[in-house]
Amino acid sequence: MALTAVFFDLDNTLIDYAGYKLKTATAAAEEMAKRGFPDTVENIVKKIFDVYRKHGMEYQKTMYDVIVQYGLEVNKAEMFQQASLIAYNRSKFAGISPYPGTGRTLRKLKWMGLNLAIVSDGLRNKAWQRLLLAGLEDRFEAVVTRDDTGELKPHRAPFELALQRLKAKPQNVMMVGDTIDGDMYGAQQLGMRACHAAFGAKDRKENEAKGGLVRVERRVVLVKPDFVINKLRELPPLAAGLMK
Amino acid sequence: MALTAVFFDLDNTLIDYAGYKLKTATAAAEEMAKRGFPDTVENIVKKIFDVYRKHGMEYQKTMYDVIVQYGLEVNKAEMFQQASLIAYNRSKFAGISPYPGTGRTLRKLKWMGLNLAIVSDGLRNKAWQRLLLAGLEDRFEAVVTRDDTGELKPHRAPFELALQRLKAKPQNVMMVGDTIDGDMYGAQQLGMRACHAAFGAKDRKENEAKGGLVRVERRVVLVKPDFVINKLRELPPLAAGLMK
Repeated sequence: MALTAVFFDLDNTLIDYAGYKLKTATAAAEEMAKRGFPDTVENIVKKIFDVYRKHGMEYQKTMYDVIVQYGLEVNKAEMFQQASLIAYNRSKFAGISPYPGTGRTLRKLKWMGLNLAIVSDGLRNKAWQRLLLAGLEDRFEAVVTRDDTGELKPHRAPFELALQRLKAKPQNVMMVGDTIDGDMYGAQQLGMRACHAAFGAKDRKENEAKGGLVRVERRVVLVKPDFVINKLRELPPLAAGLMK
Repeated sequence: MALTAVFFDLDNTLIDYAGYKLKTATAAAEEMAKRGFPDTVENIVKKIFDVYRKHGMEYQKTMYDVIVQYGLEVNKAEMFQQASLIAYNRSKFAGISPYPGTGRTLRKLKWMGLNLAIVSDGLRNKAWQRLLLAGLEDRFEAVVTRDDTGELKPHRAPFELALQRLKAKPQNVMMVGDTIDGDMYGAQQLGMRACHAAFGAKDRKENEAKGGLVRVERRVVLVKPDFVINKLRELPPLAAGLMK
């Protein structure tokens, strides 16, 4: 049957989340160095990402954890911390970069008559914040987040809610995402086609080494995406072929 | 003895905190109205300040409390909430307005040879954030906040810490602030001169009606500031007279 809708994962599929975290961390580090912080921009950024690796990229006390390592006088430390947070936030609220060509690609897919939805494991508030900061908030017929079903991909629930919102049948839908065990496996379990956004997959090399074997729901399964794209702009011609 | 130092309260003395809250609330309301929120900018701002009156101006869930009143669909509500928060934060991190002439006045006092300090009841992180956003972070020899002594004005501790940091004697210091029971009473208890920043006093009319009578430490006392100013720029000539 013919393609009528495309579902998208958000972080690292449409939005360059890793690039955004690097941009904001660099802005914070540059502000600190400019004000005389006793280390280089390069080293400060490295320490910020050390904290991210330890506590996750949504950790709320990152700059504190970095600055406390230097043993500065408390008011001096607070000045650096607040200055870095102001720079971080100015950079954050200036906007998030989607991957190149995201806006154009989504416009083209809609022009072709396809319905679009987000199926994200992110929290509802973070998902909407990022859609707005990336200027993508008006492009989707449905936005399904972790909060809508309480379940994470590959669970059926978020996919089924998006299908229901778009009144679509699984065989008419393609899911585009960066995770093999969540996006690809989840989509195929429901009979949707699965397109791997290989550019966003942070564990791409690991995936390739395993030849498509992933651990889902305590079993090891072989997951082979139906399609692989290395740029978002490869989607419209691929979708056109599936609409016939 | 001659004046050698001036201490300042921060919020509503150097920084127009009420004006800043109005600016950010208006930015949030305008963004919502622009996106089709079912109310006017004026009404949204009014509802934001209703929440501030109920929960304080540092309350973290203000926009949620406003939007939930309209019973919108949850994703629509989240979109408006995140859009308003982005506008609020862009406006916030763009900068805080000090009262007119603050920068010039502080420069002049320093040029006259006076040492300057902040004695604030605010939290250390908020005080430094506001000093930085107002561009005043480099003007003071000492910044004393609630976190430094754990005590609030009129307690002796924050004043004494500032005196110690500046190696100043109370009789050589003037405290400038907007609160009668905190700034004025506290300063005079230590033998400092007390200058009332009447432009920032939110309870000015109430103060005047009471003829200087305030309740401090469970007693009612008569507090008469040594000086009253209606503009910050009145400070340099006043200070010059006290330096002779």
